[in-house]
Amino acid sequence: MSRLLESYVAGAWYRADDEGEPLYDAVTGEVVARFSSTGVDLGAMVRHAREVGAPAVRALTFHQRAVVLKEVATYLSGFKDELYELSFATGATKRDAMVDIDGGIGTMFSFASKGRRELPNDTLVVDGTTEQLGRAGTFAGQHVYTSRPGVVVQINAFNFPVWGMLEKLAPSFLAGLPTIVKPAPQGAWLTEAVVRRIVESGLMPEGSLQLLCGSPDGLLDELGMQDTVAFTGSAATGALLRQHPNVVYGGVRLGIEADSLNCSILGPDVTPEAPEFDLYVKGIVTEMTVKAGQKCTAIRRAIVPAAQADAVIAALSARLSGIVVGNPADESVRMGALVSTLQRARVRDAVRALSKSADIVFGDPDHVEVVGADAEAGAFMSPVLLRAHDGAEEPHDIEPFGPVATVFTYDRLEDAIALAARGRGSLVARWSPMTRRSHVR
Amino acid sequence: MSRLLESYVAGAWYRADDEGEPLYDAVTGEVVARFSSTGVDLGAMVRHAREVGAPAVRALTFHQRAVVLKEVATYLSGFKDELYELSFATGATKRDAMVDIDGGIGTMFSFASKGRRELPNDTLVVDGTTEQLGRAGTFAGQHVYTSRPGVVVQINAFNFPVWGMLEKLAPSFLAGLPTIVKPAPQGAWLTEAVVRRIVESGLMPEGSLQLLCGSPDGLLDELGMQDTVAFTGSAATGALLRQHPNVVYGGVRLGIEADSLNCSILGPDVTPEAPEFDLYVKGIVTEMTVKAGQKCTAIRRAIVPAAQADAVIAALSARLSGIVVGNPADESVRMGALVSTLQRARVRDAVRALSKSADIVFGDPDHVEVVGADAEAGAFMSPVLLRAHDGAEEPHDIEPFGPVATVFTYDRLEDAIALAARGRGSLVARWSPMTRRSHVR
Repeated sequence: MSRLLESYVAGAWYRADDEGEPLYDAVTGEVVARFSSTGVDLGAMVRHAREVGAPAVRALTFHQRAVVLKEVATYLSGFKDELYELSFATGATKRDAMVDIDGGIGTMFSFASKGRRELPNDTLVVDGTTEQLGRAGTFAGQHVYTSRPGVVVQINAFNFPVWGMLEKLAPSFLAGLPTIVKPAPQGAWLTEAVVRRIVESGLMPEGSLQLLCGSPDGLLDELGMQDTVAFTGSAATGALLRQHPNVVYGGVRLGIEADSLNCSILGPDVTPEAPEFDLYVKGIVTEMTVKAGQKCTAIRRAIVPAAQADAVIAALSARLSGIVVGNPADESVRMGALVSTLQRARVRDAVRALSKSADIVFGDPDHVEVVGADAEAGAFMSPVLLRAHDGAEEPHDIEPFGPVATVFTYDRLEDAIALAARGRGSLVARWSPMTRRSHVR
Repeated sequence: MSRLLESYVAGAWYRADDEGEPLYDAVTGEVVARFSSTGVDLGAMVRHAREVGAPAVRALTFHQRAVVLKEVATYLSGFKDELYELSFATGATKRDAMVDIDGGIGTMFSFASKGRRELPNDTLVVDGTTEQLGRAGTFAGQHVYTSRPGVVVQINAFNFPVWGMLEKLAPSFLAGLPTIVKPAPQGAWLTEAVVRRIVESGLMPEGSLQLLCGSPDGLLDELGMQDTVAFTGSAATGALLRQHPNVVYGGVRLGIEADSLNCSILGPDVTPEAPEFDLYVKGIVTEMTVKAGQKCTAIRRAIVPAAQADAVIAALSARLSGIVVGNPADESVRMGALVSTLQRARVRDAVRALSKSADIVFGDPDHVEVVGADAEAGAFMSPVLLRAHDGAEEPHDIEPFGPVATVFTYDRLEDAIALAARGRGSLVARWSPMTRRSHVR
């Protein structure tokens, strides 16, 4: 299926007339699709969202928007098998694909339900009661929320081609904003398939959803005061966006979800005999291996009592050695490929950098046994566990976006907290205490 | 009182050993104080906030912090007369000073009251109930809010030397954050006097409030992931701050309150006989003349039905001609001086720019009759009313930060809304309909 992905622009599917960037099957290394938006009229795209999409969405009440979301989610539910099929080429197993596809559709249902339960059947949300501002009652105010007359540009990461789109599209639509989706190249064939299904359903008002399968260069130049960019990706790209003139001077709202060095702390009182110990170990292994560790919420740092470090590493290693890596379409496989060999090269680089202040205690970043595929042609990689030296720096700074985690040890709880804080504002920090003792306290 | 203002740094008052920038009395043009922070150790200042101030504030519960705020507000209430006296040199009348001084102290009382009524007697706010994340009940979450271990740098505007500080200090303290205040040069003698009173009271924990009377160059270099900058001032300076490396790459939170082209719309059904017409006119004149129009919420654009434009302009002009301009210490004076002759020059420039697409219908930006002062030596200026040409651009783009407003006319309500929206996200848009007819609808 090495075809050129198309963009959905101003009510029509647009096909670039150049070859485009090749996108590779993560499992076989073959070209699976091509990616180009050469020639797309970005100005027309933004105008279409503003002049056609926005008025159409804003004409609906919150409840009507919620009904549309529910209908779209129901419609997409009929095409899950087709989407699972397309998902294998991203390296994802069926279980991984369900996180992305079922998870994304579930998020739409969830926003639909919130829209009907928590918002009025109106285009305004009245916040509080009238507030008297002048003493004589001649000056009063009433807070209301309503839609801005702007557009939302959603720049998404490669790891969730479906969920990443739907979790931004749903609240944007509910808020009365038209969406322009820019998927990451890798996996964009899956995003394109979902947008095709939504467009063919005719359920969403024309202009409320457009798709840009290609470079977004120049797109921010078209945005202004009422518009929003919702970006998910690397901190480096996020920093570039922050410096765009329309963000610095033009009032474009910018949301960035970037790198995160999440952690999971094993409580000081949990011993290997406790069920909490086992839950902790299972949790780390799941986080390392689901989506081959390519989740923004994946646990990168396991912070454990020094006295338990050897036991934790032994238990993790035992579980990790049972993880079958290979072709995600093979049902015996537990962990598929990374999304691309480029991404694998980046993760290998990250592991090399981590190795400056941590020792590899499980796995070999350069070698893995795989089932049903060629380990090097596909983007396969072994789970890798490291153990940090005292005072290690790199594992707090570098996010290996793959099946990699580092074990840190602590003596006092304050030290565990200090280690967790080294993540500088992570998305996730888990805490595994002894629940039974907690109940007694 | 041409003395060098001091900074309060790491527990001691710091006096620069250079001459400093002269600050002028807005009424007489004489040097009233000097402003320099040469030699302040900014790194030590931030460390003191982080290591001494932050732990001390965070050790208090929300209720304890609220009690401190109430005590500080009560203490400051005893020095209002001294502060009014210092305020005259900023050009402010007694009424203007009360907005700043009584308003600022009132804001502290208000936050104190909110802290005790709306927050728990704890250092944590528990948000919602425990949420089950895993099906088996082995994975659960609880949202809580608590203080970040960072500092807040507050960079304030010249127009409210007291309120501008206290309205940021109060919520920051309540949130458990230590404050570094950087006042604008003009009026900083008033901010310094308030900080002196707070410090001498001993009510706030050491390190929770520091004052930088001088250039903040280099201060953002000392900040990181847990810190916040709360800036009020020009959009141009705000754009510079947005581009600071510690904001772009370092995760420093930045809040900007900058230029705003506020408007007040006269409803299409309000005729000159209606009391709403009179309220509308009075409101515009108040907004133009309180603080000589130097308020971020001041109305710059009066949007009125075309049929009423002449009547509105006549009524505004009649009221404006009754405004006595002059020495703010003189009780007959209704409008004092702008904050400085530099600021007056800027407002005159702005009026010249507005004149490209609007005609001056009241006042002369270059001449004013004053009471008890020298109109040119002091920063006095007449209120100036303009009437926009059809399709005017400048009055939607340029904020004359002084006693200046522009009248726009509309035929259909949609046009009024479109004119209002040309302000691109203003702080304030007022709406004056016929209240009695609204009741009937």
